[in-house]
Amino acid sequence: MPAPGVPVHCPGPVPDGVLDAFWRYDAALLANDRDVLDALFMPGPDTVRGDGRVLLVGHEAIAGFRSGRAVIPTRKVAELQVRVLAPDAVLIMARTADGAATGLQTQLWQHTADGWRVAAAHVSLPARSAPAPGAVPQAPVDPAVWRVAGIPLLPPLGSGPLDGIGVAVKDLIAVEGHPTGGGVPAYLAGQSARPASAPVVTALRRAGAHLTGIAQTDEFAYSIAGSNSHYGTAPNPAAPARLGGGSSSGPAAAVALGQAQVGLGTDTAGSIRVPAAYQGLVGFRPTHGAVPSDGVLPLAPSYDTVGWLTRDVATSAAVAAALLPARGGTPPGPARVLRLPLAERLAEPLTRDLFAGRVAAFEAAGTLPPSRQAALTAATLDEWFAAFRTVQAYEAWATHGSWIEAHPGSLGADVAARFAAAAAVTGEEAAAARATVAAAREQLREWLDGAILVLPTVPGPAPLRTAGPAEIDDVRGRTLRISCLSPIAGAPAISLPLTGHDAPVGLCLIGAPGTDLPLLSAAARLAAAPERTP
Amino acid sequence: MPAPGVPVHCPGPVPDGVLDAFWRYDAALLANDRDVLDALFMPGPDTVRGDGRVLLVGHEAIAGFRSGRAVIPTRKVAELQVRVLAPDAVLIMARTADGAATGLQTQLWQHTADGWRVAAAHVSLPARSAPAPGAVPQAPVDPAVWRVAGIPLLPPLGSGPLDGIGVAVKDLIAVEGHPTGGGVPAYLAGQSARPASAPVVTALRRAGAHLTGIAQTDEFAYSIAGSNSHYGTAPNPAAPARLGGGSSSGPAAAVALGQAQVGLGTDTAGSIRVPAAYQGLVGFRPTHGAVPSDGVLPLAPSYDTVGWLTRDVATSAAVAAALLPARGGTPPGPARVLRLPLAERLAEPLTRDLFAGRVAAFEAAGTLPPSRQAALTAATLDEWFAAFRTVQAYEAWATHGSWIEAHPGSLGADVAARFAAAAAVTGEEAAAARATVAAAREQLREWLDGAILVLPTVPGPAPLRTAGPAEIDDVRGRTLRISCLSPIAGAPAISLPLTGHDAPVGLCLIGAPGTDLPLLSAAARLAAAPERTP
Repeated sequence: MPAPGVPVHCPGPVPDGVLDAFWRYDAALLANDRDVLDALFMPGPDTVRGDGRVLLVGHEAIAGFRSGRAVIPTRKVAELQVRVLAPDAVLIMARTADGAATGLQTQLWQHTADGWRVAAAHVSLPARSAPAPGAVPQAPVDPAVWRVAGIPLLPPLGSGPLDGIGVAVKDLIAVEGHPTGGGVPAYLAGQSARPASAPVVTALRRAGAHLTGIAQTDEFAYSIAGSNSHYGTAPNPAAPARLGGGSSSGPAAAVALGQAQVGLGTDTAGSIRVPAAYQGLVGFRPTHGAVPSDGVLPLAPSYDTVGWLTRDVATSAAVAAALLPARGGTPPGPARVLRLPLAERLAEPLTRDLFAGRVAAFEAAGTLPPSRQAALTAATLDEWFAAFRTVQAYEAWATHGSWIEAHPGSLGADVAARFAAAAAVTGEEAAAARATVAAAREQLREWLDGAILVLPTVPGPAPLRTAGPAEIDDVRGRTLRISCLSPIAGAPAISLPLTGHDAPVGLCLIGAPGTDLPLLSAAARLAAAPERTP
Repeated sequence: MPAPGVPVHCPGPVPDGVLDAFWRYDAALLANDRDVLDALFMPGPDTVRGDGRVLLVGHEAIAGFRSGRAVIPTRKVAELQVRVLAPDAVLIMARTADGAATGLQTQLWQHTADGWRVAAAHVSLPARSAPAPGAVPQAPVDPAVWRVAGIPLLPPLGSGPLDGIGVAVKDLIAVEGHPTGGGVPAYLAGQSARPASAPVVTALRRAGAHLTGIAQTDEFAYSIAGSNSHYGTAPNPAAPARLGGGSSSGPAAAVALGQAQVGLGTDTAGSIRVPAAYQGLVGFRPTHGAVPSDGVLPLAPSYDTVGWLTRDVATSAAVAAALLPARGGTPPGPARVLRLPLAERLAEPLTRDLFAGRVAAFEAAGTLPPSRQAALTAATLDEWFAAFRTVQAYEAWATHGSWIEAHPGSLGADVAARFAAAAAVTGEEAAAARATVAAAREQLREWLDGAILVLPTVPGPAPLRTAGPAEIDDVRGRTLRISCLSPIAGAPAISLPLTGHDAPVGLCLIGAPGTDLPLLSAAARLAAAPERTP
């Protein structure tokens, strides 16, 4: 079992069996044989495994992490340093090499009745080092987050409230000197450098912001998963084993990673609010039409908005102040709060409890007035959602259909299938759906008059990165049923971080159209409130 | 001594004294108290310390590494997991936090007659993770390597021998759509986006190459250190504790890191050959004027050249084929080899021995014809070097003096001092120096006629990153005495990696002006030869 040619250094004799166990473990690691890996880790609550990102304690937590891991190492062990601490305790440090990259694994092996087991492990992911000849080129930026980035990419055009703020611009929004790619390399290849930035970009730069770069999007923004078949799946720093959500995947990750303070994105059906919820960020979708969408690649213009992700409400409000016209004086906050029990029932139990507990705490503290319930049946919501989806699909195909037909094979399977379905929507179907949406809009706006609607942003934490298409599609359906409400109403919405379980979700506030600034004020009050009742 | 509030988890009682020792070690780490750190590591050859990059064995190697470390951690310990393996052996895993970043330190403590000592340590450098509110923004690219980068930044303009090759362009060379910064932020701030790329950039893109990004340079390229007072010191992946060399610091690091295959730079006095030698790369400086320098920010036009860094000779030759006119048929290689004992004596003993051994091996294998010695006295070389330096300074001030005078405080101390000295050079001094350089050129060209000159690229490995200004200045003087010869002659030169000690140096071949392609062929033969005589 020991790999031939790997030098083993040990000041004295190595106890029987521990190297065999090490190599059995290593083979299982390369084969992603999780059963063997789990068996070779010491059972019980004291086993520990860490890397530069997380320190997991207990066999169960470690096994759970392993099941969510997407990347299987391909490195080889290059050298072993073995230190015997006691007859039943051996420390092994294994230097690993993967072409260019080098890494280090330290394992504490202890002898048990069942043989040698790992009681503690520390893994250093491969660090940058001189690559071997012929090694695969490494990108200077994370391709799942950025298409182009700089320090900065473009400087401010003035000084103002956004001084020092770096903006990651979703690759749907024009940046002067660069083509717009829409997350689709074949589309990008046909584009020229834009002569001018979108007005929203220029407005941010005039207010003092600089551009950090052009960040990735799900293909043509027609997804909320946060994975792009060409550029990869963006990281979710708040929950590394899970998807990050999309379609504003790059701006969200850039903000979550601290590489930008503002992610300028678009939200048609949830593309800002969903990644915000999944990553513990603040995501703001303005009133439809309040922020000009000139210079922005459309998806479904009836619902498309330009919005932003930030790490806190204050920064979100600063962006709003730069982009949205103030309406003379501080507008009054909404007098009433509405809840939608149906939307809450769509959420998973832990998320529902977390949400209800937080709202109750806000009410108890007086941060929110006591809420009332809006009556909406499941059948009506299904009808609204179907109509919303039909209109979105019809418009998406009208926007991109001719390009897609002329460039077969340019999209990943999931997005291609969605566009193929969109191609089948007839004008009659779309017209009927528009009538349903108009009625829904009227009902929603009636509820929102003088009120804010409070609901979970998403039904639960992001799917694991290992989730299959069926699971992702199921989550997508349940998520959009909730997230379609503000697009249907053309109403502003903000998602606030809702934490307390193992991965973030979001608490969403929806206000009446035009109440963007009061909605942000209400959000600021909630964000400043203590998380729990005393 | 234990930090209050840091949770300590241990399944049983913690042996006396080990936590005190841990906290003493941690305080010393934060204070960079190397004496305490060295004392708390177990003496002897079996102590081991690793991270994702290197695994050091033996107390001496670890202490040496520590003395070369530039960055002192500022993180705090957030959590301790303690496992007792024997009465005298304790494993401590410390999760650390530094604002945004998290890390992990694993230490095996053993009890000795002198108390608790670290017998093995594994450090995970902070990995990306969700930043804390208010955390310092992280750049999406390494600012010491890149100013702007993309996947790609600009695509190819054709298909050819450079298909798939990514180029890092030094920030002296025009890239369309971007300003040229010259490594000086205040200068960059006054520049507009270039309407067109330098012809050399366009030629590479027509041959199939894409641009990976715009890479950093020492300020106005007037340094060979590889550190920029504004953007930082570029990494040297081949020798992490050492400087990487400059002024083509960004292109060199980009190639060494595997983030580009070609670093397009400039070499006035050594700015390609020196970083190539320090990082184990191939660095090519063409015949003066052979590659057009239109669109390139000058330093000293009499010596300025556009050249390139690669990881192998084959890629360097492919770039040459795209940029240099072929001269009908394969030109014959040089018949004779010259050595310059004086230049070899300028090298440190280890470098000199390594160089002489390699040349002897080449001669023994017939890869190089037997060499003869060129007679050059130290006094003559000093005279040549002084004249070269005077002309370079005079031209550098003519190029940048008026801008520098109008923008005081825009340069780092070392470069500012160099320009200040340059400002004092009179026209008469420059004219006299030009006459000396012309005579030196004539002598060098006579030697190079039908021959190649073989010499060490640099007198020794790169200075440590902790080296002070005096040491760096001393190394600079000895280096330029060697590296000024090809600029004086206007002759092509190539530096090949010369490895065998703890950090790379280089073996330099200089050919007669115009023999760029035969020189590359000769370099390819050397690179293909076995490193040692059988």
